[in-house]
Amino acid sequence: MLSDITRPTALLNEETACRNIARMAEKARRSGVRFRPHFKTHQSAIIGEWFRAEGVAAITVSSVSMAQYFAAHGWRDILIAFPVNWREIEAINALAEAVSLHLLLESVETARFLAARLTAPVGIWLKVDTGYGRTGLRWDDAADLQAVAAAVEAGQQMRLLGLLSHAGHSYHARSTAELQAIYAETVERISGARRALEQAGFGPLQVSLGDTPCCSTVEGFAGVDEVRPGNFVFNDMMQVQIGACRVEDVAVAVACPVVAVHPEDRKIVIYGGAVHLSKEQLALDDRTISYGAVALPDASRGWGVPLPGCTVASLSQEHGIIRASDDLLAQVRIGDLLMVLPVHSCLTVDLLKTYRTLAGERIPMMGAG
Amino acid sequence: MLSDITRPTALLNEETACRNIARMAEKARRSGVRFRPHFKTHQSAIIGEWFRAEGVAAITVSSVSMAQYFAAHGWRDILIAFPVNWREIEAINALAEAVSLHLLLESVETARFLAARLTAPVGIWLKVDTGYGRTGLRWDDAADLQAVAAAVEAGQQMRLLGLLSHAGHSYHARSTAELQAIYAETVERISGARRALEQAGFGPLQVSLGDTPCCSTVEGFAGVDEVRPGNFVFNDMMQVQIGACRVEDVAVAVACPVVAVHPEDRKIVIYGGAVHLSKEQLALDDRTISYGAVALPDASRGWGVPLPGCTVASLSQEHGIIRASDDLLAQVRIGDLLMVLPVHSCLTVDLLKTYRTLAGERIPMMGAG
Repeated sequence: MLSDITRPTALLNEETACRNIARMAEKARRSGVRFRPHFKTHQSAIIGEWFRAEGVAAITVSSVSMAQYFAAHGWRDILIAFPVNWREIEAINALAEAVSLHLLLESVETARFLAARLTAPVGIWLKVDTGYGRTGLRWDDAADLQAVAAAVEAGQQMRLLGLLSHAGHSYHARSTAELQAIYAETVERISGARRALEQAGFGPLQVSLGDTPCCSTVEGFAGVDEVRPGNFVFNDMMQVQIGACRVEDVAVAVACPVVAVHPEDRKIVIYGGAVHLSKEQLALDDRTISYGAVALPDASRGWGVPLPGCTVASLSQEHGIIRASDDLLAQVRIGDLLMVLPVHSCLTVDLLKTYRTLAGERIPMMGAG
Repeated sequence: MLSDITRPTALLNEETACRNIARMAEKARRSGVRFRPHFKTHQSAIIGEWFRAEGVAAITVSSVSMAQYFAAHGWRDILIAFPVNWREIEAINALAEAVSLHLLLESVETARFLAARLTAPVGIWLKVDTGYGRTGLRWDDAADLQAVAAAVEAGQQMRLLGLLSHAGHSYHARSTAELQAIYAETVERISGARRALEQAGFGPLQVSLGDTPCCSTVEGFAGVDEVRPGNFVFNDMMQVQIGACRVEDVAVAVACPVVAVHPEDRKIVIYGGAVHLSKEQLALDDRTISYGAVALPDASRGWGVPLPGCTVASLSQEHGIIRASDDLLAQVRIGDLLMVLPVHSCLTVDLLKTYRTLAGERIPMMGAG
């Protein structure tokens, strides 16, 4: 089944990915909220159709180019969840003519820029920082929120739809209880910001949340109108470490040829480096750094469970160095394949640009050659 | 000059790159050694021609696909500086028919595999570990070296040409004296391995070295037959930190649109994230992590000197967060461009796939769309 793989290859377990999609779609339906999944993880028109089969009609992307790609593949309701890039205003206008386009706003300057330059209608979401601290309007700065909301309403082509947050600090959590607490705090803070704006005469406004750790962990999506998780479609070792999924829920692994074995140093060298896996790293419990978990190929499921005592311990541009157990060293040979479960699947598949399903089918991503 | 840049773009200062190439080529000529530059850094047929103009005829690459790309662009003497990947034997044979192909070997198993499967002649270099500890035959294990050399000589299509080392531990050095000491030790160790093999009846054998920190720092290439540095063509903030180049010798920077400014948090948000810069990180002197240095655009030189007190402090998939000085905050506006000097240029340009020269010319890399 894997015998014709010659180079580092993203293997996709379609059954696991579809189960991950179905589970999140069902939770959204049950909660009565709009499911607007983030497509920056998979970046693939074909995988997009798996979401459509679950009733998804509205999507999230992280760049104008990604919006163009999915618009060209029939998506008609697209949110670009990234602060508006003024330098792409022409492409934004073209998209706004073609689809129902939603933009993220967090400053009066950008609201004024859009008011002057937009030539077609867009929906506007205020980006609210509810504690992550990356970017956005502070949830408790009512004056700032109102100033931006007023600047939006002054623009002819802009319609203020709601408030949006990404609780990225959930990636530092390590338990379900912690994640549920972050979710509750995020909902409380963004709802407070909504209330302040509505009391000032704006709205009615919706709220949109969406990080995979919280969305995977809460029982239901109480208190929000829309959820936007993305990574959950594949999951990865970071989500496993957070406790947001089980290792059986990881849907991609990179098949890497073994090119050298050094039993005396307990090391295996694979063809699979920073340009295939990315340099995203995870600190393990023993405080060593991991660039991926290691598993054996499996004819029916693609790969087995991660091998205890084995990890991708360092990466060069094309080399991966696996710290290997005696057990693995005893059975692996040069020319074999080993499977690497990525630390951060979004970055890994972005590098590989193409998936191969367990059935051997090729699924291209945006930008694939 | 940069006004039409809308998205993260690798800007290439052609003059600096050509000066870097000329300097290394001249040092090799002066030392009387073969200059076989590593093309994994630039991965571009057009930039390859800049090397050819300096008299370069033999090159190094890090994968079979890269060898295919440069063979298709007229290169006839190619070393694949990566342990032989058995699973690509068909492509290796096709290359060996077409060009003078050199392979790296570090095990009896691979020598026997090649003896059984090669259909055209190749040159063989033994990969020797002289202290880096990534992979290769230990420099002081004469029995192992001889066993592999004997297995090579038993193969009809293989000709044993020499010993090759990559002193990657030079990347931990922080002074010229340290780098010169690593170079001297590497030459001493690999020469000892050569002597042991020649005394056992193999050879005559050549030696090949080639990491940018050592090659940029030594006065001349004493004691070797060939050098293979690659990164020096562009350099980066890692080489600056090591002391292997000056900041004026960095030939690439990524132009990134500013999308948000938060003076109260001393933060600037740019469109330029992990999928543009890579997550290669550098620990600064104050022990904070940097994903790149920050400079202002400059009409004639592309960018100015890195701004003190400013750094790319964190990265998401598409966002970069700059920790900014008051000075920068006072002059930057949403919609401006900031220039990021990469931590590790090889990984950054591999992500961007296309260069733009200061004259606005587009230079594609292998795999560019």
